[in-house]
Amino acid sequence: MASYLPTRLVPIGNDRALLYVAGQVSVADGKRLTGRCPDEVSVEEAQARARVCALNVLAQIDSAAGLDNVEQITQLIGFVLSAEGFGDQPKVLNGASDLMVDVLGEAGRHTRIALGANALPFSVTVEVAAVAVVRTH
Amino acid sequence: MASYLPTRLVPIGNDRALLYVAGQVSVADGKRLTGRCPDEVSVEEAQARARVCALNVLAQIDSAAGLDNVEQITQLIGFVLSAEGFGDQPKVLNGASDLMVDVLGEAGRHTRIALGANALPFSVTVEVAAVAVVRTH
Amino acid sequence: MASYLPTRLVPIGNDRALLYVAGQVSVADGKRLTGRCPDEVSVEEAQARARVCALNVLAQIDSAAGLDNVEQITQLIGFVLSAEGFGDQPKVLNGASDLMVDVLGEAGRHTRIALGANALPFSVTVEVAAVAVVRTH
Repeated sequence: MASYLPTRLVPIGNDRALLYVAGQVSVADGKRLTGRCPDEVSVEEAQARARVCALNVLAQIDSAAGLDNVEQITQLIGFVLSAEGFGDQPKVLNGASDLMVDVLGEAGRHTRIALGANALPFSVTVEVAAVAVVRTH
Repeated sequence: MASYLPTRLVPIGNDRALLYVAGQVSVADGKRLTGRCPDEVSVEEAQARARVCALNVLAQIDSAAGLDNVEQITQLIGFVLSAEGFGDQPKVLNGASDLMVDVLGEAGRHTRIALGANALPFSVTVEVAAVAVVRTH
Repeated sequence: MASYLPTRLVPIGNDRALLYVAGQVSVADGKRLTGRCPDEVSVEEAQARARVCALNVLAQIDSAAGLDNVEQITQLIGFVLSAEGFGDQPKVLNGASDLMVDVLGEAGRHTRIALGANALPFSVTVEVAAVAVVRTH
């Protein structure tokens, strides 16, 4: 039995649940997208990787509850592997935020916490976790 | 349509809702308060900036639900732009925590996650996000 | 009156509550376990310190609600004091994750956000915070 899960559901009444999604790193086609922004990876490329993280978040939500059942994306917390002095994390994470709205419309709008980090798992460029509200019936 | 929101409400029954507040950075009078602690910005000055973040959190709560309707500040997560080896993030973030209690009394007491970061949006000194419980009727 | 609390309970109906646990640092027998991974503290030693953080999280849950009343560990967010280029935060945090399951079984499985940081309070090696669902009757 693995110690962790990709998602956890918390019923909150009225046929709704909070859905917690584990941190999703920038992995596409099984390949980790690594490197620090902006000296190793450009802001534009990091944006594309944030979008990949958001796609992985949406895949987890779909698997756990179905994308049709998303009532709102409540919180998105995103970390960008950052060189010292780099401050464009919001621009990078727009790659994730905009995808949420492209796919889910109004329901995809979310509160966001945009942060930098000097080190991330496997040195991925971006990591994004989320909390959503989903309909359970 | 912007992709993100300053707050999101999640009804949890009994005329209550969780209120998620997006990360609020140290901005006062439209001016970003930037720089790393403690080599560019002193602990005392960083404390004042944490207080500014908390004021911005309270303004968002007031706008979304009204400060009179706050039942509890549930979680406060705070990041301090930190030089390596700096470990006084709790002292800095007391500037935010103490303001919550000054304004809200017992309801303002909260669980806290105090952290450092090598990089934050626009190189602000402090960023604080929150989750609260508010009365909705 | 202290400004912060070790835990906060949020009733969500059906005799259940969300329990937020403040960030717990690696402190054992009153002694802070400090230093950066992997150059000052090995991955194996950091894992043991992550386990200490998880024990402190469980102690807070037990004090607030009783371990017997844990329905699920919903979210675990863990930060490892990291040298640049270090990417084994997941391995370090398995020390915390595995303990949750050792103690609580299936209920201990959780979503996880594993992160690095260049600075943490008092330069501790690991900090772990959590959200759980507990039975309140």
